[in-house]
Amino acid sequence: MTGAADKRPRTKPAEIRRDELMDAAESLFLRKGFAATSVGEIVAEADVAKGTFYLYFKTKDDVLDALRTRFIEGFCEKLDLALAAGDRDWSGRIDIWVRTCVNAWLDSVARHDLVFHQHAPADRAMKADNLVILRLATLLEQGAQAGAWTIDHPRMVAVMLFDALHGAVDDSLAAKTPLSRAQLIALITRFYRRALAIDQG
Amino acid sequence: MTGAADKRPRTKPAEIRRDELMDAAESLFLRKGFAATSVGEIVAEADVAKGTFYLYFKTKDDVLDALRTRFIEGFCEKLDLALAAGDRDWSGRIDIWVRTCVNAWLDSVARHDLVFHQHAPADRAMKADNLVILRLATLLEQGAQAGAWTIDHPRMVAVMLFDALHGAVDDSLAAKTPLSRAQLIALITRFYRRALAIDQG
Repeated sequence: MTGAADKRPRTKPAEIRRDELMDAAESLFLRKGFAATSVGEIVAEADVAKGTFYLYFKTKDDVLDALRTRFIEGFCEKLDLALAAGDRDWSGRIDIWVRTCVNAWLDSVARHDLVFHQHAPADRAMKADNLVILRLATLLEQGAQAGAWTIDHPRMVAVMLFDALHGAVDDSLAAKTPLSRAQLIALITRFYRRALAIDQG
Repeated sequence: MTGAADKRPRTKPAEIRRDELMDAAESLFLRKGFAATSVGEIVAEADVAKGTFYLYFKTKDDVLDALRTRFIEGFCEKLDLALAAGDRDWSGRIDIWVRTCVNAWLDSVARHDLVFHQHAPADRAMKADNLVILRLATLLEQGAQAGAWTIDHPRMVAVMLFDALHGAVDDSLAAKTPLSRAQLIALITRFYRRALAIDQG
């Protein structure tokens, strides 16, 4: 390796250092809030020199962007693994989709809110590139090609289904008496199956 | 009338004055942005003394809250009128619902974004009181009682349908080549009919 970075002594590979800085930042953001956390606190938490931070990130906002990317990648990885491991049947894949999304989300509500809820909801362009929606659109398109359902506009239907799930989870989280995880999954799965005109199993 | 407000000379009823102040503020917010608009500019635009502003509002944020309430009330009024004037048939009501929502929204995107998009999306509690969702839940419940469809959880299904519509409109607005209004309405209507397992007309 050449370049500025390796002039400094390093005992750990860059990827691990970067991840550790992100872990430290995430834990502080969740505990104290994003605004109240300083770069100084992040490097103290990660036990590295301040200069090390600036090898990887320009600002605190940069770290938040990286945390968001990591969150989305982790979410997509869970979906890909669950779909690869699970049912080959198309309607079964829809069930796995819903279950995995709801579980992954409910397992990480605080992190989800941290990485997304600094964003203005009007940021419509961001959603256009939403990787979870893109994956769902692909799944819908493949299912349509296989004759599992008919869909006139996979992208739009994927958006509607994604936002329906998002809304249901959000609403349950805000409710005085939230639905159980199992109830939520059952409700959304039924909704998806109907919206795709899949026979109710 | 008694009280502090009517000690000042007034040539217009309070409701009209208040609406005029709101109109002036809205026009400025849309033109210059909320942050860049001052109370001084609002009273100049409405052609009233600064003291008059403070008879009705404490702050600029107060005006935005009032604009949001007025926006929601206007939206609900359009829905109520369209439903009252239209088809008595349950699946027809769903069509009217979708058409009215999409039209009302596309006719007022800038105002919608102004009154809502200052809000953090994490404000889950706000959605719990969303009057449009409450109306849709009532419509779904009534239709279920009339045997038009079966629904296990009208509130949740209303949330999912509302967010599906919201997401589709948002996505189309963000798209490089947005769907036409008619395409959007047709797509969402089909989605709603499927999600409610209504026979496709």
